[in-house]
Amino acid sequence: MNRAARIHHVGIAVRDLDEAIEWYTKRLGAEVELRATMPDQQVEAAALRMGTDRVELITPATPQAPLERFLASRGPGLHHLAYAVDDIESALAEFAAEGATLIDTKPRPGLHGHPIAFVHPRSALGVLVELVEDSAEAD
Amino acid sequence: MNRAARIHHVGIAVRDLDEAIEWYTKRLGAEVELRATMPDQQVEAAALRMGTDRVELITPATPQAPLERFLASRGPGLHHLAYAVDDIESALAEFAAEGATLIDTKPRPGLHGHPIAFVHPRSALGVLVELVEDSAEAD
Repeated sequence: MNRAARIHHVGIAVRDLDEAIEWYTKRLGAEVELRATMPDQQVEAAALRMGTDRVELITPATPQAPLERFLASRGPGLHHLAYAVDDIESALAEFAAEGATLIDTKPRPGLHGHPIAFVHPRSALGVLVELVEDSAEAD
Repeated sequence: MNRAARIHHVGIAVRDLDEAIEWYTKRLGAEVELRATMPDQQVEAAALRMGTDRVELITPATPQAPLERFLASRGPGLHHLAYAVDDIESALAEFAAEGATLIDTKPRPGLHGHPIAFVHPRSALGVLVELVEDSAEAD
């Protein structure tokens, strides 16, 4: 890690995306940045800006979505923590060199179109970690 | 909410604070901002900076700590999400006016010495929300 990672977003699992967007905009002054369905993850997601910060609300798009199991066992709430890194390939290589369990061994496109990859919670002190290659956020 | 809240920190429950600090500094380039025991919450906490972002690592300071129950049932991981607000009294009043369940009806000093208050997850879509009056962070 050449320089400190930055928090790209906090991922929050919700049951009703519209209701959640309304809550975050009304209650905390958030603004919807973008909203999209991510077929590969079977989630519908909305990125909300709060100043320079961001939360990502996610809800299952299908009954078979892995996120459905998360909601069934833990309920709505904090789901993952995404860090912006300059170079996701080297960040993944560093995690792998430490013996980390990578959910994605190769980057794939994320909600914002940037390359992303997930690291398993067992290799990140219980936190589901998402790496996002977004140099604009990593300064 | 006059202007958008900002993320003050992401609270993460850990089993071993020293080990966790080492992981975050080595793995993600974080720097320890401060470390203290919070007797009223029975936790030992460390604030770690990552650029302008911050994670707060917390571990039970006593076997009776409420956080011990969290760790026993859910394991280490994401614990709470703290938002910086300009005026915590008015933010609390807004939550109360919406019928929210407040864990702290009055602000109390937090890790950084700023007034803080927790809102129950049932009133924040499953997320344990901490409000922090820190106007420096709320711009």
